[in-house]
Amino acid sequence: MKCPHYADPFFIDYVLKEDIGRGDITTRLIFKEKKIWKAEIKAKEELVLCGSELVSYIFGKIDETVEVKILQVDGVRLRKGDIIAEISGDPASILTGERTVLNFLQRLSGVATLSSEFVKALDPSSDTRIADTRKTTPGWRTLEKYAVRTGGAVNHRFGLDDGIMIKDNHIVMAGSIGKAVSDVRKGAHHLLKIEVEVSTIDQVYEAVSAGADVIMLDNMPVEMMKEAVHIINKKAVIEISGGVTLSRIGELSRVGANIISVGALTHSAVAKDINLTLYP
Amino acid sequence: MKCPHYADPFFIDYVLKEDIGRGDITTRLIFKEKKIWKAEIKAKEELVLCGSELVSYIFGKIDETVEVKILQVDGVRLRKGDIIAEISGDPASILTGERTVLNFLQRLSGVATLSSEFVKALDPSSDTRIADTRKTTPGWRTLEKYAVRTGGAVNHRFGLDDGIMIKDNHIVMAGSIGKAVSDVRKGAHHLLKIEVEVSTIDQVYEAVSAGADVIMLDNMPVEMMKEAVHIINKKAVIEISGGVTLSRIGELSRVGANIISVGALTHSAVAKDINLTLYP
Amino acid sequence: MKCPHYADPFFIDYVLKEDIGRGDITTRLIFKEKKIWKAEIKAKEELVLCGSELVSYIFGKIDETVEVKILQVDGVRLRKGDIIAEISGDPASILTGERTVLNFLQRLSGVATLSSEFVKALDPSSDTRIADTRKTTPGWRTLEKYAVRTGGAVNHRFGLDDGIMIKDNHIVMAGSIGKAVSDVRKGAHHLLKIEVEVSTIDQVYEAVSAGADVIMLDNMPVEMMKEAVHIINKKAVIEISGGVTLSRIGELSRVGANIISVGALTHSAVAKDINLTLYP
Amino acid sequence: MKCPHYADPFFIDYVLKEDIGRGDITTRLIFKEKKIWKAEIKAKEELVLCGSELVSYIFGKIDETVEVKILQVDGVRLRKGDIIAEISGDPASILTGERTVLNFLQRLSGVATLSSEFVKALDPSSDTRIADTRKTTPGWRTLEKYAVRTGGAVNHRFGLDDGIMIKDNHIVMAGSIGKAVSDVRKGAHHLLKIEVEVSTIDQVYEAVSAGADVIMLDNMPVEMMKEAVHIINKKAVIEISGGVTLSRIGELSRVGANIISVGALTHSAVAKDINLTLYP
Amino acid sequence: MKCPHYADPFFIDYVLKEDIGRGDITTRLIFKEKKIWKAEIKAKEELVLCGSELVSYIFGKIDETVEVKILQVDGVRLRKGDIIAEISGDPASILTGERTVLNFLQRLSGVATLSSEFVKALDPSSDTRIADTRKTTPGWRTLEKYAVRTGGAVNHRFGLDDGIMIKDNHIVMAGSIGKAVSDVRKGAHHLLKIEVEVSTIDQVYEAVSAGADVIMLDNMPVEMMKEAVHIINKKAVIEISGGVTLSRIGELSRVGANIISVGALTHSAVAKDINLTLYP
Amino acid sequence: MKCPHYADPFFIDYVLKEDIGRGDITTRLIFKEKKIWKAEIKAKEELVLCGSELVSYIFGKIDETVEVKILQVDGVRLRKGDIIAEISGDPASILTGERTVLNFLQRLSGVATLSSEFVKALDPSSDTRIADTRKTTPGWRTLEKYAVRTGGAVNHRFGLDDGIMIKDNHIVMAGSIGKAVSDVRKGAHHLLKIEVEVSTIDQVYEAVSAGADVIMLDNMPVEMMKEAVHIINKKAVIEISGGVTLSRIGELSRVGANIISVGALTHSAVAKDINLTLYP
Repeated sequence: MKCPHYADPFFIDYVLKEDIGRGDITTRLIFKEKKIWKAEIKAKEELVLCGSELVSYIFGKIDETVEVKILQVDGVRLRKGDIIAEISGDPASILTGERTVLNFLQRLSGVATLSSEFVKALDPSSDTRIADTRKTTPGWRTLEKYAVRTGGAVNHRFGLDDGIMIKDNHIVMAGSIGKAVSDVRKGAHHLLKIEVEVSTIDQVYEAVSAGADVIMLDNMPVEMMKEAVHIINKKAVIEISGGVTLSRIGELSRVGANIISVGALTHSAVAKDINLTLYP
Repeated sequence: MKCPHYADPFFIDYVLKEDIGRGDITTRLIFKEKKIWKAEIKAKEELVLCGSELVSYIFGKIDETVEVKILQVDGVRLRKGDIIAEISGDPASILTGERTVLNFLQRLSGVATLSSEFVKALDPSSDTRIADTRKTTPGWRTLEKYAVRTGGAVNHRFGLDDGIMIKDNHIVMAGSIGKAVSDVRKGAHHLLKIEVEVSTIDQVYEAVSAGADVIMLDNMPVEMMKEAVHIINKKAVIEISGGVTLSRIGELSRVGANIISVGALTHSAVAKDINLTLYP
Repeated sequence: MKCPHYADPFFIDYVLKEDIGRGDITTRLIFKEKKIWKAEIKAKEELVLCGSELVSYIFGKIDETVEVKILQVDGVRLRKGDIIAEISGDPASILTGERTVLNFLQRLSGVATLSSEFVKALDPSSDTRIADTRKTTPGWRTLEKYAVRTGGAVNHRFGLDDGIMIKDNHIVMAGSIGKAVSDVRKGAHHLLKIEVEVSTIDQVYEAVSAGADVIMLDNMPVEMMKEAVHIINKKAVIEISGGVTLSRIGELSRVGANIISVGALTHSAVAKDINLTLYP
Repeated sequence: MKCPHYADPFFIDYVLKEDIGRGDITTRLIFKEKKIWKAEIKAKEELVLCGSELVSYIFGKIDETVEVKILQVDGVRLRKGDIIAEISGDPASILTGERTVLNFLQRLSGVATLSSEFVKALDPSSDTRIADTRKTTPGWRTLEKYAVRTGGAVNHRFGLDDGIMIKDNHIVMAGSIGKAVSDVRKGAHHLLKIEVEVSTIDQVYEAVSAGADVIMLDNMPVEMMKEAVHIINKKAVIEISGGVTLSRIGELSRVGANIISVGALTHSAVAKDINLTLYP
Repeated sequence: MKCPHYADPFFIDYVLKEDIGRGDITTRLIFKEKKIWKAEIKAKEELVLCGSELVSYIFGKIDETVEVKILQVDGVRLRKGDIIAEISGDPASILTGERTVLNFLQRLSGVATLSSEFVKALDPSSDTRIADTRKTTPGWRTLEKYAVRTGGAVNHRFGLDDGIMIKDNHIVMAGSIGKAVSDVRKGAHHLLKIEVEVSTIDQVYEAVSAGADVIMLDNMPVEMMKEAVHIINKKAVIEISGGVTLSRIGELSRVGANIISVGALTHSAVAKDINLTLYP
Repeated sequence: MKCPHYADPFFIDYVLKEDIGRGDITTRLIFKEKKIWKAEIKAKEELVLCGSELVSYIFGKIDETVEVKILQVDGVRLRKGDIIAEISGDPASILTGERTVLNFLQRLSGVATLSSEFVKALDPSSDTRIADTRKTTPGWRTLEKYAVRTGGAVNHRFGLDDGIMIKDNHIVMAGSIGKAVSDVRKGAHHLLKIEVEVSTIDQVYEAVSAGADVIMLDNMPVEMMKEAVHIINKKAVIEISGGVTLSRIGELSRVGANIISVGALTHSAVAKDINLTLYP
């Protein structure tokens, strides 16, 4: 059983230990002989499924004889009552892993579902895409970014090392946008793009002339954004950011930006209701 | 700088690596000389603060010369605009740690704030307490349980090893509640209480006569709960569980149970808005 | 091959590395081709067997083609000469793992055997049980506690986090037993019992009236213990502790306590003689 | 505070986590404010002290403001009542670390004391030395070997990689002692000596002529050992091994061997009685 | 003492353990009392210094009382005999760390020196830069890439995750360069550039029309490269790769590419001669 | 798939993470379905092969369904064009592991090949052997020492703990060679030989009379070495060290020493050219 590419096998070990500690005492003291029971994991509300491969992996970590059959594909929208997985194996192992498996599925599906809401709110005629941010739950960076993609949105950089983002303080330090861009251009490797965060029209002009690959319009009024889009004129990728809520997506998606980045996809997602039923 | 007791220093290292990866390139290439700048962490909306000691610890991990002065105590309700911490140190270090620090503060304060909402919803005349569950974000068990306490609620067991919880499947396996309780009584150490989950009045009687220390009334109608409370008659601690929402707390707190356990405290908390401003 | 529930796979890796270091040079330089030899693990004196599943697990870590057939069950009393396991596989792998396997078996069986001596010393008419303490070998907590159960005794709490034990200094700090119990009752989760250590009859009264779940009679004269048992009158579980030796068990088990806790089970156990013979 | 050279800082972290788990709840709930109390660690019976530097290191890991003053030197024979260390600091930290500190001191002093008994049993006119074996408690190899030295005995190799030991099965595999010695001489680096285990006089001759650096007389009758010593005639270091008990040391030390290796030093040592008293 | 940003503190612990194992026996047995001696680290041949901050960090890990004064800055070209660092502290600690410190300094300076040779070989009129590859010593990725920068060359991507590199097999799988670029454009985040490896003029046209950000001319004859540069006409960054040796750098740097990537910078660097002398 | 004895499975995990980071994005986005392709690993220049078992192990870590058939044995001298391994499996997995596999093979074969050059340079009539040193690449101690053996040379001690080496500073500290040898003889275990580094004829006499097991002639002129060999007269193993280059091996091997130790075997080895070709 292979750990899904979006999870760190080490982190899975860590969280199993976190829940199981020195052992699932209740189960160990009652389930003294190995049995084979069946179980089902079921959506208890409408949701976009995410994390299904973890079900197999986590139960496999606890007991490699547990068999898991995943019935749905990540990214599918399920209705209340849809069966996500059928499981067969020692009920002691299933009980021991149940909570951890559900905690993953519920949160990942929560992020995927919320992401899909934002994507659906885009103006149908727009090419703008919804992206996540680094406002992820510590420990869950690759997990939540996978859930964002599963929900139909796209990723921003994964960390401080796979993208250059020049923010206000970097500009202050460097002295100007031009100097900042030139400093990082010299030092960063040539497969990293350079994004500059701007909040005024003057800065937009500076960023364009500095040759920024991506320009982030931070917390600008809509009219100013439109002006910025006009000025940039496809010379850079355009990202809109700051205080983006679901209700503003329609309007923002008509500004003409390439990307709207939304912290809420991850920092405001809540668990979807998913349960596991065990049949003796 | 000591890691707060509710956090695992190892996990903090892990999440810093998760965000920083092979290095904060932008900052390294622009902030070439050490400077001393100031920064403030500020509440951008009303919230119950949680996690403030992590601010010092995390910045200290990145650069032990960064000075952090925490101005507020965990558990205090802040208003929009209240300053949480003043920081002084190398801006490169502050920028590198900023996102991780805020991700912790925002989520922990989210859990604490939501917990406090549930506590406030209790009937003032009631002794019932709000408790969390094991529906925590994997990796965050002790962190979120600390936030729950910070918000005024109480904790349930931390894992499968520091409390006995006999659920429906355990009962099926053992054959009866009496047999299940007696099996674990024999095997578990004598400082662990035994909780039995029941869903019918017959089971309430069985649990009482089995000598359960705690009885959980799972998803019962309110009237049935009241009958159960009457039957149990203080012979066991009573916990109410299942589908508990904020709007039901008032009514449920008048049932006479000792504890209402609420998965939502952790699985449905969202980040509170907190930011960091850096002053050159 | 699964790691037995009482062992930490990580610790097993650690101790194999401790013994093998940069490699079993002697064996590597002499056993250049893979062979299949047989081996037997045998009791060289009377003992209560403990740790047999580790034999399979540890040899499996070194070489998954080594086959291990365990002939005895943990907890069985073996006589000198009884065969514990038959092994078949590459002699190089068997030689490399031999010492670590035996070091585990010998110590675990030592603890199990000593525990069984204490259990046998109980007055046949008594319901009192023998329990362990936290005086275990650092690194061996769950291992030695498993051996204690294997020998027929029971466990006390596993660590500082799965049981509340109010000792003399806690009482001094809180001001009184009543205050100490009430402080922890408020803060600890509701599945943890509260034990209070007492050494005078006055403290016994205080502990009972504070509602202690368990009362530990620490180093009391036998007559005082009997008085305490009378006072407590089943309102709390009673534990006897302090300077317990094998020769005193008979008398102590007639005091009427529920539990006698004995540090010696783990801190004074010595290895039982077990060896491995390899047959070309 | 530096980890003593004979301990692995990683292992200390591991065992603190083992005991403390998710936190010392009792202490955290009662000791809410930082105080300064004093404590003493005291020998409760005669013993050879070992592990005193760990006292400072372990308390320092828990709370770097705890001050530890070690009053005795490892290797000194203490009488009942002698003070080993004076401690000053937050009583919460002292209580949390107490058990782990004592568990180390008690076992290490147990090994040192037992080792010193064996050393004292040597015939005063003999140059023979007492050595340990690899029969150490898994996880404790360097710790127990340090305790052995502290008790006045010497160490054998630390693992399978820092010494060559040709045993019966290696000889069977190689075909002869001569072939075995020559095989390892070719492959092992030139700072490792080669020891050969022999059990007959014929093998003694073979080992000498093979140029073994060390010859181990395994389980031989005393007369045969004396003959072997005569034959070897200082051409190799001589080690006596197998079933060595304290009562046989006098006789064995007159055989003329360089070393008597004794598994009991570590596998049969029991904890010495040492306690910690805290003064408010 | 802080770990330099280009090193992983975890890796430093690992390599210290690798060399020291169970302890520096020779030194421990001879240096029984703490002393203060002085030492110098000196260049024994001409070299570009790299790794000097590791000297302080590594000695600090072994013994935090060792004082290290670095006299030279990374990137400086030293002559034979130049003093790199002055050290003062316990000679036992210095001896124990000496080899590991030198092994780092010697290899890092080797990579920096070789990198500087390649940079010096560029035609003075050329803007082309020398870049490294992923052909680094496993375990040393960030270390060797730092040494490359120290020698005046630049970095290519650090791993498979911070840059997109479409190679021949990716093109085969996707069906065409256009399809491959479009697939990754959709899935990769918007701060990653897309590089396409081409080996024919047809592929150059395809890569340009697919909108590749970077085009790598793989193993092309010089004339074909020049044609490719002409075709690309600044629409993409141009990288030359494949069998690049020092003697070809002059010619290649006149082709008009932005970057010449050279595996030899890391895979063919050898240690520079640096030693440490200790003064009693 | 078992990790080869000369590698640390933990280190392999570490270096895979180092290269793959948060994932091989290019491959993941293009190879969306599992396929079976074939690949060959081929020598691109003459070399002594080393590390072939790592090919199977590393691909197995990435994807256990990848099949690897190793066609050559470590230690064999290959010609340009010889096929080292045939691989069959998912091309995505092969692409992801390719660079790490080659980085190991290339460097290990580099060390083995260079070692074999030194061995070939020995005078055919000489019994002197070529040995490595501790000047290995940090992280690669057992790997490079295996490569040295693969190339026909022998190993020196692996670390500071499996051999005693008394150097000039140890002698200064002890006061004399005799005192140094006697100090370590008393404290080191009896399977470790004692080597003394000498640089004058007087020291040679001292080392012999101190009973050194091995004497290292450090940086002596050839004539002085010959005198030393004569003086030592087989009473100790003789090692020559210091500034040894390939061109001096012939002459040095006629001095009569047992061993010539050469740092260059590891610190000056460069990668051999080996590539992997994938066939759709």
